[in-house]
Amino acid sequence: MGGWPHALCQIPGGPGAYSDSRGALGIRQEVARYIKERDGLSTLPNPDHIFLTDGASVGVRSVLNAMIRDSRDGVMVPIPQYPLYSASIALYGGSLVPYNLDESKGWQLDVAGMEPALAAARAKGVHGRAMVFINPGNPTGQCLPEANLRELVKFAYKNKIVLMADEVYQENIYQDSTPFVSARRVIHEMGEPYASGVELVSFHTVSKGSLGECGLRGGYFEMHNIAQGSVDEIYKIASINLSPNVVGQVMMSLMINPPPHGSAARAGLEAEKAAILASLRKRAHMMTDGFNSLEGVTCNFTEGAMYSFPRLRLPAKALAAAKAAGKAPDVFYCLALVEETGISTVPGSGFGQEEGTYHLRTSALHRAAARGQLSHARARAAILPSEEKMVDVVQRLQKFHASFMARLPVLLRHR
Amino acid sequence: MGGWPHALCQIPGGPGAYSDSRGALGIRQEVARYIKERDGLSTLPNPDHIFLTDGASVGVRSVLNAMIRDSRDGVMVPIPQYPLYSASIALYGGSLVPYNLDESKGWQLDVAGMEPALAAARAKGVHGRAMVFINPGNPTGQCLPEANLRELVKFAYKNKIVLMADEVYQENIYQDSTPFVSARRVIHEMGEPYASGVELVSFHTVSKGSLGECGLRGGYFEMHNIAQGSVDEIYKIASINLSPNVVGQVMMSLMINPPPHGSAARAGLEAEKAAILASLRKRAHMMTDGFNSLEGVTCNFTEGAMYSFPRLRLPAKALAAAKAAGKAPDVFYCLALVEETGISTVPGSGFGQEEGTYHLRTSALHRAAARGQLSHARARAAILPSEEKMVDVVQRLQKFHASFMARLPVLLRHR
Repeated sequence: MGGWPHALCQIPGGPGAYSDSRGALGIRQEVARYIKERDGLSTLPNPDHIFLTDGASVGVRSVLNAMIRDSRDGVMVPIPQYPLYSASIALYGGSLVPYNLDESKGWQLDVAGMEPALAAARAKGVHGRAMVFINPGNPTGQCLPEANLRELVKFAYKNKIVLMADEVYQENIYQDSTPFVSARRVIHEMGEPYASGVELVSFHTVSKGSLGECGLRGGYFEMHNIAQGSVDEIYKIASINLSPNVVGQVMMSLMINPPPHGSAARAGLEAEKAAILASLRKRAHMMTDGFNSLEGVTCNFTEGAMYSFPRLRLPAKALAAAKAAGKAPDVFYCLALVEETGISTVPGSGFGQEEGTYHLRTSALHRAAARGQLSHARARAAILPSEEKMVDVVQRLQKFHASFMARLPVLLRHR
Repeated sequence: MGGWPHALCQIPGGPGAYSDSRGALGIRQEVARYIKERDGLSTLPNPDHIFLTDGASVGVRSVLNAMIRDSRDGVMVPIPQYPLYSASIALYGGSLVPYNLDESKGWQLDVAGMEPALAAARAKGVHGRAMVFINPGNPTGQCLPEANLRELVKFAYKNKIVLMADEVYQENIYQDSTPFVSARRVIHEMGEPYASGVELVSFHTVSKGSLGECGLRGGYFEMHNIAQGSVDEIYKIASINLSPNVVGQVMMSLMINPPPHGSAARAGLEAEKAAILASLRKRAHMMTDGFNSLEGVTCNFTEGAMYSFPRLRLPAKALAAAKAAGKAPDVFYCLALVEETGISTVPGSGFGQEEGTYHLRTSALHRAAARGQLSHARARAAILPSEEKMVDVVQRLQKFHASFMARLPVLLRHR
């Protein structure tokens, strides 16, 4: 098992030929085995309900495209969210039904708040058909506790809502108290009526984790309890593009088939993975602590994924200065930050945030790429600064923040 | 110039990192130079109006997605057409405005018939915004003469219609009298008001020609005279998927940067290309001649692309037998053909055809893949049978056709 020769055997036509529009069967069977082992399932998922894709985003788009008929179809999306969802829902003519994450509880799902969100949509003639959740969170960095996921599953079951589990950061975990638990496992362990009653689509990718081969565009989604007729529709949509790129499929096979236990290659891989994750964990602490050291800034610990998402409590003078400059307060802050320090961040308004709150999300763009291109920054930003640079980044942040706060009266006068 | 090391230099982050959502700038610049040289342009196309894509289909979908607002937006599509177009227009909620190709003139564009087609749509409240044409034709195999393209350009200019030029088979040419001429060249050579007045999007791929690296999913589209605001919208749509796969981009660079003239590598490449095209040309003749030898079957010569698209004049008994079996006549014929001979073809109804006419398109699937899977056949079929097998295929076709015609009374009795 493992390695390119093995993976290529799963591609009968070689990497230069189209595969099945769902991806090569052999690799879909491997994904089924991988999910079964990861989640301790008693039966193998159906490989024909697993589709390989050009990255997770393409999978999300196919599923939304098949699900949305018109603006009466609503998709519940967390606020803050990763903009893939708002953009795709708008493109396919559906309605976004927002639900708030609870910042005071480390960005957990506020399941009690979901019923009113659904009712508000219903009052506007919008029928909530699906719900996206992102675990570990992007941009919010939380790992959802199992109890929180169980509440979510009950909500979905009760309201007949398809769950869309964006679990692309499942390997990026920076603490031990809340390990990643897949929605697939939670539903399985809850037993009936949930195990065979809750419709779930789970997304994964080769772009994150310690692998991070995002340029190869490999991903999969697995459909659980989805009606065969819907699977067939999604297959039709996938067929329009002929086939996902084959190199990305091979990379997926490599990701889920590490070299065998006990081999030198496996030991090397595990050591490399552990080093990468240990370094990211250290950086998550440095970044979170750094933000929490700033006046008026609070930041939940980055438990997973790749980002810190601190809240900025900006004084009235900052809000006035932003208004005078014709910018949202968080955009105003982030622009000043990138202009003065070269540190690129994405304003919270790019992800949505509760009315009257301001946030930013960290990223690690080069100065040149970031300057004046904040609108595209979220599409490119992927990793925290390197460990060596982190001390400097935090110091520059602290210096900037203090100076920004001190200069507010001057900024106001200049506009 | 040429080769992997050169192409990889155009990918600053390496193949494992996201590129710009439009594709790597260096490769887009190479595509601009390639188009300028191919078409004898006086100025370089704008590389920021060239987008690299995961194959041409993804590009077509992005452009249609950006263009279609609702069912009042019409896209003119040839009949017969490649089903990517009908499927994508339906998915994005637009209206398909059909125009017929003229089988009696070797499947040329019937430009005179386009005005009534547009008027018929207008009478239904549908505004024709764009027109797809496929040159060389899929499934019809024609190469469009320059005079025919000039008429088309005038029609598009007069009616303010965006031309979408599907030119993916531009290297697959099997005769010398009607060479491939790109729409980009035609518009340039027509001069004003067309040169800067006709909006054109041209599509190309690494999946066809003598290269045929379809599993790598590489393609581009170039936008000419498209308003900057529209280009920006299409950029936004491309950004949702983060970036096209990088290996496909590298393959595009390799395709348009052959080894230098005079080198041994170039000579080898040219010899291989020439051999592939000579063999395809021979097979195009064998296939077309084979069909024309059948009773009631006529087939325009396959001037380019990869397919023969013969017309079947089925006797009343065949139509009755098909009706009794609950199938369209061409589906009935193609199913009998694959069941009895293993030769897989796609019924003309999969592409659209003039009312009361019946066709099929050739393909080269394996028996097992083809059996019972005609609905997916068009997504997988790509090449004519190999030269050695062609004699046998034609003989089996002839034998089947004669037997099919002879057995019709029996077939009727059994239903």
